[in-house]
Amino acid sequence: MTERPPHGSARPGGRTARTRAAVLAAAYEELDRDSFAELTLDRLARRSGVHVSTIRRRWRTVEGVVVDLLAERSSTLPTPDTGDFHRDLRELTQAIADFNNALRNRNVMQGLLAAAAHDTRVEEIVRNAFVRRTEEVTLIVRNAVERGDVPEETDAWEVIASLGAPLYYRVLILRGSIDDRLVHTTVEATYLAARSGVFARKG
Amino acid sequence: MTERPPHGSARPGGRTARTRAAVLAAAYEELDRDSFAELTLDRLARRSGVHVSTIRRRWRTVEGVVVDLLAERSSTLPTPDTGDFHRDLRELTQAIADFNNALRNRNVMQGLLAAAAHDTRVEEIVRNAFVRRTEEVTLIVRNAVERGDVPEETDAWEVIASLGAPLYYRVLILRGSIDDRLVHTTVEATYLAARSGVFARKG
Repeated sequence: MTERPPHGSARPGGRTARTRAAVLAAAYEELDRDSFAELTLDRLARRSGVHVSTIRRRWRTVEGVVVDLLAERSSTLPTPDTGDFHRDLRELTQAIADFNNALRNRNVMQGLLAAAAHDTRVEEIVRNAFVRRTEEVTLIVRNAVERGDVPEETDAWEVIASLGAPLYYRVLILRGSIDDRLVHTTVEATYLAARSGVFARKG
Repeated sequence: MTERPPHGSARPGGRTARTRAAVLAAAYEELDRDSFAELTLDRLARRSGVHVSTIRRRWRTVEGVVVDLLAERSSTLPTPDTGDFHRDLRELTQAIADFNNALRNRNVMQGLLAAAAHDTRVEEIVRNAFVRRTEEVTLIVRNAVERGDVPEETDAWEVIASLGAPLYYRVLILRGSIDDRLVHTTVEATYLAARSGVFARKG
């Protein structure tokens, strides 16, 4: 017989790690049913089976839990590398759309943005999450530069930010979902601008 | 002698209107010094001279006060009409940049977005404010269509949203200011896409 660890303790780190996993899973489930506004430490305690005082001691607030949840969930989107700039942009945009159209992911993002207004520590975490994620996928633009698809002086960061901006504007500010039409116009506008050298840094 | 009303009662509605004016002015001043996170009913009471229980009765929360402040301040940006599509886009973008680069306006916007995550009533107000403002300035695109600068089937709303998205992404999500470079790339990318028919609705 293989030595299978009992259910729930598969993550390394023992009891502390199990508590974290249980509370983050509970938060993720709660955010699939209700918005961030409805999330309370008591609801997390009820769903996770972890005592509310333990949750409060470790994360302090629901914002703290959701920040931790983002840290766990981020970097799950792969960077497309199809050999074609337009197709890379399209796949990336579709992946961002799919991620954000899942209700709970949207609730995590909206919740974090709310928390950022009340807590400069969270503000920093949110900004860093966007900046880091943007930097990761600049590979798409660097590949396109190498193939000669966009001008050499292209600012790769600006191209990716230009792609992400209409999507996050829709989700986080207009609070709607990302439909096929928005995917289309976002890809075409960014592709055209990048090809035409709008994001090229002169001199 | 003309009958001049005593200082502070110039707004119609008497005492209630004076109270509102004093509290909104206090909120606007507070947001010029500190972020939304620092705003409390007690600070508003201290600065406005209005009793905290009066503020609480009328607006319930600081979010309520800031929603009211947005209602008062919105629609202050005029819609450019220079006879040139590119110049109209540039003037509008610069106006949005100037407005949002003023610390207190940025704090109002960030505060409202935070409030929206906790209160669906505020969420609706924020969404409506963006939608209404976007609709107002679609005049720029309709003028461009009339002059033949962009294709006839152009979706004017999408063009303006494409212009606003990178600016609000910077201010509200990355939480930075709108610099000259962002104004430049945003105007050029949107201009190019609109001229090329990216926002045209076929059929």
